[in-house]
Amino acid sequence: MENGLFLTIEGGEGSGKTTLIDSLAKSLQGLGKQVLFTREPGGIPIAEQIRGVVLDKANTAMDARTEALLYAAARRQHLVEKVLPALARGEIVVCDRFIDSSLAYQGYARGLGIDEVRSINDFAIGEHMPTLTFWLDISPEAGLARIHAGEGREINRLDLEGLAFHEAVREGYRRLMTAEPDRIVRIDAEQAPEMVLDDVLAILNARI
Amino acid sequence: MENGLFLTIEGGEGSGKTTLIDSLAKSLQGLGKQVLFTREPGGIPIAEQIRGVVLDKANTAMDARTEALLYAAARRQHLVEKVLPALARGEIVVCDRFIDSSLAYQGYARGLGIDEVRSINDFAIGEHMPTLTFWLDISPEAGLARIHAGEGREINRLDLEGLAFHEAVREGYRRLMTAEPDRIVRIDAEQAPEMVLDDVLAILNARI
Repeated sequence: MENGLFLTIEGGEGSGKTTLIDSLAKSLQGLGKQVLFTREPGGIPIAEQIRGVVLDKANTAMDARTEALLYAAARRQHLVEKVLPALARGEIVVCDRFIDSSLAYQGYARGLGIDEVRSINDFAIGEHMPTLTFWLDISPEAGLARIHAGEGREINRLDLEGLAFHEAVREGYRRLMTAEPDRIVRIDAEQAPEMVLDDVLAILNARI
Repeated sequence: MENGLFLTIEGGEGSGKTTLIDSLAKSLQGLGKQVLFTREPGGIPIAEQIRGVVLDKANTAMDARTEALLYAAARRQHLVEKVLPALARGEIVVCDRFIDSSLAYQGYARGLGIDEVRSINDFAIGEHMPTLTFWLDISPEAGLARIHAGEGREINRLDLEGLAFHEAVREGYRRLMTAEPDRIVRIDAEQAPEMVLDDVLAILNARI
């Protein structure tokens, strides 16, 4: 049923996911591949509606587990309506963030537990796990510096307080990679963007 | 933290849940107990919003797993905002349908799998499982006949086609009771309503 290839891109703030995806798009399309680039909720109406409940500023009482279940629900619908049909058409699907973001951010950094958040995501994803996941690894300091360079300002005290959280996200990704070394590949995201793309293309060539 | 008592009422169509809850309310309040009767989404705004997504007639593309995750999300929020505060105040909480409805209807009768639907509900409920669950057991034929008597009409061909589904719901409840005999108590719901109430009160007296 699935002849396509399901790739996901993961990483913390400032890790260069968007830059990689843009250049990866050009490279793959230049090779004549049909590629779908997407990110949840991805214009799927039910997934957008669910995401709207999560982001509604009035919902300050939302429990962390309710939120995790809603993310998993939106993930399911985006998968069923957008990712699986493209895979069935034999396309390459590249998804900007997927299960590992929930596991690293909510499961590990927010403390809900990786295994617990995995259980509801296993239900949402079923047998449709990504074939390969690229984790763009960057130190939180370097990632923040990149974001701030784009904004034309320097790192401040508030940013530094947030560093512990971003360190925890990074440690979460590290644990996920250790648990699933065949699926999750670490890419050194402190390199120049063209080196990051080269690394990703080399791995794609070797593994696929 | 929880000094109250968490009871849930389960059963198929026409099993008399509403009648039992009305009479149970009078009995318990007559004994001077503080009792909260509720059912999801129970006026909790976030849970109502989530339920609204499930029931939106435009959402015909909704996947069965998306729906199960949304029910679990609404359950979590109703639990956190309504049930747990009442239990913390020492009240008795009686909830009309809870986890076992998801397990019997979606897990067993709709075929998603009891264990799989349980996994997302375990995440939603955590350690806050009901102390005691009354399963009002009635044959689908008798349940449908009751509903139709109230509507002043007889069982028709369409109703009979639905019998297989209601039989499956009943079998689902039967399996849940077998798996958790200390929590789930079967009540013969083909008896007169006053006998059903007597049975429930007798068990409450003996067990609590």
